[in-house]
Amino acid sequence: MDQPASIIDPAPSNDEMGRRIYELAARLYPICRSITGDGVRETLEILSETIPLERHEVATGTPAFDWTTPREWMIRSATVRNAAGEKVIDFDDHNLHVLNYSAPFRGTVRLDELKRHIHTLPEQPDLIPYRTSYYSENWGFCMAHNRLAELPEGDYQVEIDAEFKDGSLTYGEYLHRGETDREFLLSAHVCHPSLANDNCSGLAMLACLAASLKSRKTRYSYRFLFAPGTIGSLAWLSRNEDVTERIDHGLVVSCVGDGGGPTYKRSRRDNAFIDRAMAHVLSRCPKPATLLDFSPYGYDERQFCSPGFNLPVGLFQRSAFGTFPEYHTSADNLDFIRPEHLAESYRIVTEVIDIVEGDWTPVSLCQKGEPQLGRRGLYAALGGDRSTGLSAMSLLWVLNLADGRHSLLDMAERSGLGFKELAAAAELLRLHGLLADAR
Amino acid sequence: MDQPASIIDPAPSNDEMGRRIYELAARLYPICRSITGDGVRETLEILSETIPLERHEVATGTPAFDWTTPREWMIRSATVRNAAGEKVIDFDDHNLHVLNYSAPFRGTVRLDELKRHIHTLPEQPDLIPYRTSYYSENWGFCMAHNRLAELPEGDYQVEIDAEFKDGSLTYGEYLHRGETDREFLLSAHVCHPSLANDNCSGLAMLACLAASLKSRKTRYSYRFLFAPGTIGSLAWLSRNEDVTERIDHGLVVSCVGDGGGPTYKRSRRDNAFIDRAMAHVLSRCPKPATLLDFSPYGYDERQFCSPGFNLPVGLFQRSAFGTFPEYHTSADNLDFIRPEHLAESYRIVTEVIDIVEGDWTPVSLCQKGEPQLGRRGLYAALGGDRSTGLSAMSLLWVLNLADGRHSLLDMAERSGLGFKELAAAAELLRLHGLLADAR
Amino acid sequence: MDQPASIIDPAPSNDEMGRRIYELAARLYPICRSITGDGVRETLEILSETIPLERHEVATGTPAFDWTTPREWMIRSATVRNAAGEKVIDFDDHNLHVLNYSAPFRGTVRLDELKRHIHTLPEQPDLIPYRTSYYSENWGFCMAHNRLAELPEGDYQVEIDAEFKDGSLTYGEYLHRGETDREFLLSAHVCHPSLANDNCSGLAMLACLAASLKSRKTRYSYRFLFAPGTIGSLAWLSRNEDVTERIDHGLVVSCVGDGGGPTYKRSRRDNAFIDRAMAHVLSRCPKPATLLDFSPYGYDERQFCSPGFNLPVGLFQRSAFGTFPEYHTSADNLDFIRPEHLAESYRIVTEVIDIVEGDWTPVSLCQKGEPQLGRRGLYAALGGDRSTGLSAMSLLWVLNLADGRHSLLDMAERSGLGFKELAAAAELLRLHGLLADAR
Repeated sequence: MDQPASIIDPAPSNDEMGRRIYELAARLYPICRSITGDGVRETLEILSETIPLERHEVATGTPAFDWTTPREWMIRSATVRNAAGEKVIDFDDHNLHVLNYSAPFRGTVRLDELKRHIHTLPEQPDLIPYRTSYYSENWGFCMAHNRLAELPEGDYQVEIDAEFKDGSLTYGEYLHRGETDREFLLSAHVCHPSLANDNCSGLAMLACLAASLKSRKTRYSYRFLFAPGTIGSLAWLSRNEDVTERIDHGLVVSCVGDGGGPTYKRSRRDNAFIDRAMAHVLSRCPKPATLLDFSPYGYDERQFCSPGFNLPVGLFQRSAFGTFPEYHTSADNLDFIRPEHLAESYRIVTEVIDIVEGDWTPVSLCQKGEPQLGRRGLYAALGGDRSTGLSAMSLLWVLNLADGRHSLLDMAERSGLGFKELAAAAELLRLHGLLADAR
Repeated sequence: MDQPASIIDPAPSNDEMGRRIYELAARLYPICRSITGDGVRETLEILSETIPLERHEVATGTPAFDWTTPREWMIRSATVRNAAGEKVIDFDDHNLHVLNYSAPFRGTVRLDELKRHIHTLPEQPDLIPYRTSYYSENWGFCMAHNRLAELPEGDYQVEIDAEFKDGSLTYGEYLHRGETDREFLLSAHVCHPSLANDNCSGLAMLACLAASLKSRKTRYSYRFLFAPGTIGSLAWLSRNEDVTERIDHGLVVSCVGDGGGPTYKRSRRDNAFIDRAMAHVLSRCPKPATLLDFSPYGYDERQFCSPGFNLPVGLFQRSAFGTFPEYHTSADNLDFIRPEHLAESYRIVTEVIDIVEGDWTPVSLCQKGEPQLGRRGLYAALGGDRSTGLSAMSLLWVLNLADGRHSLLDMAERSGLGFKELAAAAELLRLHGLLADAR
Repeated sequence: MDQPASIIDPAPSNDEMGRRIYELAARLYPICRSITGDGVRETLEILSETIPLERHEVATGTPAFDWTTPREWMIRSATVRNAAGEKVIDFDDHNLHVLNYSAPFRGTVRLDELKRHIHTLPEQPDLIPYRTSYYSENWGFCMAHNRLAELPEGDYQVEIDAEFKDGSLTYGEYLHRGETDREFLLSAHVCHPSLANDNCSGLAMLACLAASLKSRKTRYSYRFLFAPGTIGSLAWLSRNEDVTERIDHGLVVSCVGDGGGPTYKRSRRDNAFIDRAMAHVLSRCPKPATLLDFSPYGYDERQFCSPGFNLPVGLFQRSAFGTFPEYHTSADNLDFIRPEHLAESYRIVTEVIDIVEGDWTPVSLCQKGEPQLGRRGLYAALGGDRSTGLSAMSLLWVLNLADGRHSLLDMAERSGLGFKELAAAAELLRLHGLLADAR
């Protein structure tokens, strides 16, 4: 009989929540993150103002399955100067200008040699691309193609004041403890520099979600992970294999601040509870949602869904990665994300959590024939009116499927009605002594 | 080897059958039925002229699962008179004028008070609606909205000469005994007053169907139930729980006289034999049919498909309830139903019965390679002609699938051919010693 | 670790192969074949120049399940002469002119009697139809409808110099032995006279395929069967019931030289490996392919898929039989088939064989998280570039699904990538020690 308490509309208002998430994302935006180094630490520190994050440091050289924790990267400055000594590229102007995880370099090179180290987007000639070189040592810059075209022949002084050193890889973790130790994992990558949607948006949204859960008594425990892409999730997995056995649901969250989508990529299991709950919530969104089958390309769901783990973890986004022109460019800035989109993304994930928390399997205590709803004031008393049927549909569906083999989500899928409405109907019927819990 | 006899075309002709059903429906139309009372008894008496109905009386106050048999309702007259003493509403004009199961009332009321007891259809202002108040005591009238609008302010004399009394609820039952005690349930609600399609049409069609089965030797037993909606089927179920275990197929039948549809709502089991047989017959109707998934709103399939019974009972209609403008109004009259539509509905149900009766699982006695049909005169002798293939398809399909794991209905579903054609092919092959019965 | 060798592009070039098949078909075209007799023997002799065919003779009267091997049919000449002694029909002009397996006849008949023995195509009045009368003794001719219309009233001298005699039915067989005795059956009917597509094309294509397999080391053994339709495959089946238990895959091949289709009719099992492999190859053809469900009408798949055998044998064609106007007429001549279409048909079947040979079930040796592909040079080193993802997709899919429960074909079906690409990726990963064989 100990049903979870009925669904609580999470305070504060959606508008206010969108603003909070946006402001937090805006604070994270300027920081130059990479897979290791102080950018991640600074980011986690800011997030710690919202939730009591536990920070983990994994020493350089620590194995993580097939991988090894890389050295820390420190970047102090990076410039290219022309013959006149004028800066033509400057990391201080935009942290995308330096190839992320670039090796240090100091020297004078001719333009054609320099060009071999400069990445541009000829089809988006005013944007700076985002490029990385984590696992192969290179030095390099990124810049707008139009700016590169303006550079005259000649010698250029290059100075990348960067350093690789033994240190550690950093990730942050927060566990909201629920009634049980079964877990819902929410993960966002923390390694991208100044890209607002990818993934300041996801970091900020999860932090605000975690904060709002603090005041909520939940059935599940909710684990929030803020880790660098790939190597960060691998490090976490390798140190938490026992935890993975407790994960019943999971979402990787990225690019949740733009106006596209929503998009959900199913877990490798294809029809896990999280996949069904997401499909249900998205089916009722005002904007038509895109449901994608699992594929092993994307974010850290690649690791969570590797065959040795095969966790029920999907990927939630607004626009799918790689599909919007701002993706991995300097146009993914604070103008590209909006509070109202962040609020809507937050609402969607919150509704999924409501389903995860609120699903149960009712058993009707009156399975032979319908119970007489009218006598209990649960049914429009006046028969024959063709309008009355609809309002009672949720009650009728719950009663009809309350054979102990259908959870509320099953009922939502079969009836086409909303989970919320059915949950409210089931609660009402339970209060009237017509339903019990199948457990 | 004791296959059921080959399918007999039920005499009389379809045209004649349509006329018979219409005439019977027309006799039932004027009677003022309700869930209890003499209207039902009079209806059953008329049906008894066609089939030897057994009449059951269930005493007021008898429990039926969560329900209780209500008191009998007697209605003698119901009028509203204006200040001049002229009748402005008169039950004698149309039995829809009185709120069905209305409490008695006598008194003088002002127009605004009267209006609170009058039901109209503002969007269909010339029609009288059908309204009931079974389980909440009210007095009231129904009338055309335009007529209500004409009533001047002033006092009105209301007199509803009705009575509730302890008595009984009445239902009728007829069992056609077949070779086995496995049953096919056919049920029509008997509680609606002057509504021709809903359900004089269903009552008349089932009575004529029952009559025609009398001369047919069947494998199944056929149980016909004419009971008031909801409480009637609940009463029957509560008194016949043992019978429900013998029900292999069932149909609730209502609104079978209009020109819409045909419509079939699947049983809660979704893919019961009756659902598959109905889908097969409807797939071959001249008019495109509508197949609806089960939902727990409608007629007495709600009770038969409640989780404690979960019987394989679907709902057969022409236009689906609630979807046609005449539904539950005075426009559902004898002009709205037509003999040809009743005949077509009858044909559909009869074909379903033919499948239920005629399905069997042939086993080929020559499973390695095809048998030589030509030598037995079963195949067009002249090869190479591209037209000959089609006519032999039913023989070839039956032989190919006669592995003991496919019944004729399975074969029809896989081949896309008609059940009738395959049944004839199987019979021919059996006569030639090429098939045996898998049983 | 003994994977099959990587897929070898079969020499010679596709263009050259198309020409070879066409030339062989052209040599077979003029011969007057029937279900028995020297036409079949002459055909097999020509095919023997390409592959070492084993010729089998089944004596007249030998039973084959429900059938009996018929007498041999010998046809020397067949003419109809008008009153002036001029030949108005002459078998020497076109072997379709005689009803195939016609009884001998000599006599003078009036035009109306003659017409009862003449088959025409009134809707294709310039074409000679192909007609047979194998299992019912008849004499007859086939001719263009327009030519028949020109014949004046009067007497006609008919002379069909044919003979039925005890002898044998002939079929040819060739077995390419692979590493195992599990078999892939490829069958083409050898009984049609001068019809180029139906089935000189199939005979020639299978012979050339068999020849090219000679130089290929295969896992499966490949059995090629050239037998008369129906009675030929029945004779083979009745003499090779033990072989049928070793058949894991099979294709009946006919009408593979026209420009329609491609068309594949699934085996009776509906989702056998051959059905899936065919569907995969056809899904990637430049022309949209047609996939048909099994039906028990067509070619010898009727016998192979009879319930007592239920072999995984489908039918591969370009245009489906009976769907093109040239079908079973004199227009199915050497102009109707083209080398390029034959080459494309050959390519399709070869790709299916590549899948049958090349499918295996990899098991990742690094299932927890992804292995680090970059360190092994298997991955574009430079991250962030949105173009790099696609090229690595096949590696990622193979690794992700290499849980020992997915073969390469399973992976192709789930990923939407091509089998070839995935097989190459798996081979690369195996070479890098990342995959083992699940066996």
